[in-house]
Amino acid sequence: MGGKNLRIGILGASGYTGAELVRLLQDHSEASIAWMTADRNAGQPIGALFPHLAHLNLPALRRFEDVDPAAVDAVLCCLPHGLTQETIAALPRGPKVVDLSADFRLRDSDLYARVYGGPHKALEVQKDAVYGLSEHYRSAVARSWLVANPGCYTTTAELPLVPLLAHEIIDTRGIVIDAKSGVTGAGRAAREGSLHAEVSEGIHAYGVATHRHGPEIEQCLADFAGRPVMVTFTPHLVPMNRGILATIYARLADGASAMDAQRALQQAYADEPFVRVLPLRSTPATRHVRGSNLCLIAVHPSRVPNEIILLSVTDNLLKGASGQALQNLNIMTGLDERMGLSQTPLFP
Amino acid sequence: MGGKNLRIGILGASGYTGAELVRLLQDHSEASIAWMTADRNAGQPIGALFPHLAHLNLPALRRFEDVDPAAVDAVLCCLPHGLTQETIAALPRGPKVVDLSADFRLRDSDLYARVYGGPHKALEVQKDAVYGLSEHYRSAVARSWLVANPGCYTTTAELPLVPLLAHEIIDTRGIVIDAKSGVTGAGRAAREGSLHAEVSEGIHAYGVATHRHGPEIEQCLADFAGRPVMVTFTPHLVPMNRGILATIYARLADGASAMDAQRALQQAYADEPFVRVLPLRSTPATRHVRGSNLCLIAVHPSRVPNEIILLSVTDNLLKGASGQALQNLNIMTGLDERMGLSQTPLFP
Amino acid sequence: MGGKNLRIGILGASGYTGAELVRLLQDHSEASIAWMTADRNAGQPIGALFPHLAHLNLPALRRFEDVDPAAVDAVLCCLPHGLTQETIAALPRGPKVVDLSADFRLRDSDLYARVYGGPHKALEVQKDAVYGLSEHYRSAVARSWLVANPGCYTTTAELPLVPLLAHEIIDTRGIVIDAKSGVTGAGRAAREGSLHAEVSEGIHAYGVATHRHGPEIEQCLADFAGRPVMVTFTPHLVPMNRGILATIYARLADGASAMDAQRALQQAYADEPFVRVLPLRSTPATRHVRGSNLCLIAVHPSRVPNEIILLSVTDNLLKGASGQALQNLNIMTGLDERMGLSQTPLFP
Amino acid sequence: MGGKNLRIGILGASGYTGAELVRLLQDHSEASIAWMTADRNAGQPIGALFPHLAHLNLPALRRFEDVDPAAVDAVLCCLPHGLTQETIAALPRGPKVVDLSADFRLRDSDLYARVYGGPHKALEVQKDAVYGLSEHYRSAVARSWLVANPGCYTTTAELPLVPLLAHEIIDTRGIVIDAKSGVTGAGRAAREGSLHAEVSEGIHAYGVATHRHGPEIEQCLADFAGRPVMVTFTPHLVPMNRGILATIYARLADGASAMDAQRALQQAYADEPFVRVLPLRSTPATRHVRGSNLCLIAVHPSRVPNEIILLSVTDNLLKGASGQALQNLNIMTGLDERMGLSQTPLFP
Repeated sequence: MGGKNLRIGILGASGYTGAELVRLLQDHSEASIAWMTADRNAGQPIGALFPHLAHLNLPALRRFEDVDPAAVDAVLCCLPHGLTQETIAALPRGPKVVDLSADFRLRDSDLYARVYGGPHKALEVQKDAVYGLSEHYRSAVARSWLVANPGCYTTTAELPLVPLLAHEIIDTRGIVIDAKSGVTGAGRAAREGSLHAEVSEGIHAYGVATHRHGPEIEQCLADFAGRPVMVTFTPHLVPMNRGILATIYARLADGASAMDAQRALQQAYADEPFVRVLPLRSTPATRHVRGSNLCLIAVHPSRVPNEIILLSVTDNLLKGASGQALQNLNIMTGLDERMGLSQTPLFP
Repeated sequence: MGGKNLRIGILGASGYTGAELVRLLQDHSEASIAWMTADRNAGQPIGALFPHLAHLNLPALRRFEDVDPAAVDAVLCCLPHGLTQETIAALPRGPKVVDLSADFRLRDSDLYARVYGGPHKALEVQKDAVYGLSEHYRSAVARSWLVANPGCYTTTAELPLVPLLAHEIIDTRGIVIDAKSGVTGAGRAAREGSLHAEVSEGIHAYGVATHRHGPEIEQCLADFAGRPVMVTFTPHLVPMNRGILATIYARLADGASAMDAQRALQQAYADEPFVRVLPLRSTPATRHVRGSNLCLIAVHPSRVPNEIILLSVTDNLLKGASGQALQNLNIMTGLDERMGLSQTPLFP
Repeated sequence: MGGKNLRIGILGASGYTGAELVRLLQDHSEASIAWMTADRNAGQPIGALFPHLAHLNLPALRRFEDVDPAAVDAVLCCLPHGLTQETIAALPRGPKVVDLSADFRLRDSDLYARVYGGPHKALEVQKDAVYGLSEHYRSAVARSWLVANPGCYTTTAELPLVPLLAHEIIDTRGIVIDAKSGVTGAGRAAREGSLHAEVSEGIHAYGVATHRHGPEIEQCLADFAGRPVMVTFTPHLVPMNRGILATIYARLADGASAMDAQRALQQAYADEPFVRVLPLRSTPATRHVRGSNLCLIAVHPSRVPNEIILLSVTDNLLKGASGQALQNLNIMTGLDERMGLSQTPLFP
Repeated sequence: MGGKNLRIGILGASGYTGAELVRLLQDHSEASIAWMTADRNAGQPIGALFPHLAHLNLPALRRFEDVDPAAVDAVLCCLPHGLTQETIAALPRGPKVVDLSADFRLRDSDLYARVYGGPHKALEVQKDAVYGLSEHYRSAVARSWLVANPGCYTTTAELPLVPLLAHEIIDTRGIVIDAKSGVTGAGRAAREGSLHAEVSEGIHAYGVATHRHGPEIEQCLADFAGRPVMVTFTPHLVPMNRGILATIYARLADGASAMDAQRALQQAYADEPFVRVLPLRSTPATRHVRGSNLCLIAVHPSRVPNEIILLSVTDNLLKGASGQALQNLNIMTGLDERMGLSQTPLFP
């Protein structure tokens, strides 16, 4: 532990993303956990909530009031949407902050108010926030003190789309994102819809045409397309715990081919440690990235001329949440981006 | 049992569709099983293969050579693709035949050869075959001796699309069918890709742009659109046993609205016992039709103007296979179409 | 519907056992549902809570205050433990009542108070209650107005043990019941421990040495052994929705053999429609009784001399709850015991 | 890689245990994989068989004939039972060998012949083999060149029982081991019984009173009890991929208490990195050790006087196979026993 110079505080460690951060940080050679908060479970060891972490040597959970945010180098914030903005606004400046909630993702305050049902309460801080799709906002992330970590669906959809829009290989119109997620995306809250008996042996769509990740995806894609993008986005709940698969339908730009898409993606991610572009016509499975920060991408020519199908898989708790958060923290602190993120996927 | 006048023979009773026919026929007041074949398991009771049927009073499995096809009123054929066509061609004329394989579904012999990798071996019989999407080919089914029972993906996709194309509410171009299936769609064959450890806790696409149900869907849709239709069709394997969800993206015809689609579907299926059109913006789940012959359909306006999203769910072994086969048999024999098919879905 | 003379009221139809009763009653030729209560969801159709029942023609859910218990021939009570006793005590005498809760199962009021943490509030009614393990208390059930329907674990364990104790083939001492249940046994309440992410991909024991079904089993076994019986009982939660497997270890009485056990069980259940004794050394699976009222039992000689292993499987929502409740109701009303209970198991 | 001095060869890398070894070795600071064999897949990258390993930098799979066993420091053998003994007998002496098959576990050649259905073919090598339950045979393992890695059920059962028998806290008679396993215990072979549709949503016992791990457990327990031990052992297949739970029923020796058992286990494993004795009456879950080499143990007093219930969980692919194999290899080569085995469990 002697060499661990990066002191970390975790706000809201009682959920799946918090627990996953704890897991990842065990493999980080420079970071140590200084404190973790979980207001309703303050005083308990994290093993009381997450028995799989009980054998680790970790500080007990504490109330937010009882920790010193200024005493850490970085804060990883896993608080719920809506509650996060004021908490982060009230933090002392100094520690780097990665926020895993949606609170600082949308730059347009009107759009935020419309999508999240009320005005933003920390607009001055919002101005500082950088959207943390690591591979495409890396230099801005490196310079910022506050990163808005992208959503799980959005990350999985944006990684294949950004290079193709940036290079004008696909049209900005007609993009359809049919996404499938495991149930941990809904968090650990005790809700009827997340019960084993309600989730297993079945699949259904939800949030059709209304899910909040739609506008977030569009904001990111517009950054790289250079003009507004409107997408069709349909999330589905799959009877599994982890993983997101985005099946994306796109129209090729005039003169572009599926091979152009393949090449553009290979080039974009050639040096990236966590994004792998598979050979043309591959079919990645979410189970093959489980527990890792990897995103696997594949390109398929469609039966319909001038269209392609993109497949993209992540572990929603890793590249879709805690993994990318740690990746961003590494970037913000000048560390090797891969630190704490070299876990080999667990299969089966 | 005295009143059971419809003697049934089942060819290939060792697979899931065969076993499901046996289950359904227990609830049929007019039909009785005269014989069942399973060449490799001849001589055994079906309970040796399917312990959930062991308590039923059923004839032992027999070899095809040892049964008399002429002694039954109807044959339900659950043999594998490719092996079926010659078997059915060799049957004596007399019994009604419902074929659950793909062998007689495609009317165009060139298309068949291309899709299934070789020439059809019973083209003269193919001419007699009627495509058995019960709700839309009912009168032809009623007159035929041979019904080609539709595929599971195709049924689930065709039911919402046919009325909308027939009434020109959606365009023939731009239809995207993103379909998700449980693993029984792959049958009971012992294959690595169907193992629990390879299927659970994950999702992946397969047969992208190449799956054989694509051309079958197009043939059916063209029948009602009055001109060729090309669709994008992507199947996915979901970690569940039963169920198909088709998420379908379509463009509205000029002047048409999502409400027009809703009304057209409600009207088309108002008197159908097995197809239920849910209120606008509903999200049907496959688990809510499990074990039943139901198809649930919902319409959603898209975020993108002039587009709609259709959701359709079936149990792939019922409306997607054995249930529709029995429905067709009821139609062919002049019985109440619902006989043997009134099972309430099993949930959870 | 003309012939349906048995009017049924269901108290507490918003849980899994209530929904399962609704499903079973669709197949009952004599019974019709007059009313269903669900206080918090009064006014809604049951399809709002259970979409798999939405297509059925059923009365809307009502508040208890708004139904007339005297207007039905039978009440099936699916209210929670503890809340049930006073409700049933306050019902008008007249309708037959089957109570699916634990409130009237234990005859000894001291034992009840100890096991359920407080005194019974309807002891005078308790005296009328008959324990409803249908096969073994049939004549008492037939004469009673109030049946205490057995628990799911208890039914599964008692059916193999009762005949062996009654015929003194096994010792009353040393019985170990290692039971494994699906998650619907915990009901539909939104609890963290029942979430998909907390239940799937794992197994654990719970209530070790303290589960309330232990004393219930002992009361029943003592009835047939003719003296007190103490059992070791350990329940486990299995990542599945339905089903209970009891693996039972027992010592043979002096001079008795595994074949004696096999014969005694075969004889005991030879004429029973729902209990099947499999050939010696069979291994029944819960999935082979899913959705049915069946109990499958198998006997194994142990490696250890003079010991046997019993395997017993049920669907916890059928023979372990709603199925046996309907079976008891049929007995109480003089109907064919099998009415509404002839569903073939659903597999896979 | 410069510091990686321990060259490893893996025989039979195409199964789950082989793939798991590859995963673990990525985290080992001293070991590198020199070669991997998989006869039917020779020439392919391991990513062709296991896409979750495709991104790693690993040698291609080779045929056994094409590798040089003498060129490595250690061989990890994942070949099937029965095929292993002659292969290992033919290896050059020099490399340390850990055999994950059952071939060298039973020391008594008559017992081996009876249990495995034929005579052992490498009895002279058998004499050198040390049974590799790491915590209890550590010094012998350290001195040996050939370790017979214990089975998954056996490890999970032996770890809680060995200290209690060694200290005479429980009787040697009356031990009942009711064990529940995930499906990877059956390997990756394409068998009907391992299909998703045959495994999910259900549980069943198998190999009742006949499973080969029974004699293996008895051999180990006798080593520490100082006299023969006969156990009742019943394995069950649970619808999950990884994990074993052993629920063990034992009689206390005269004068011994559950607290004595608790203390003896705590003392036995106080300094062990992978075995954790939980507080009295805890209920460990397999999901809380998934992906780790941990074994969690809990003691419960039974309802029955003078009896206790032990709960023990492992990941069958880690402490039950590849993890313990690597642990043994570390012991044999004088390395820190924890190397490559510090993975935090993956939950959910």
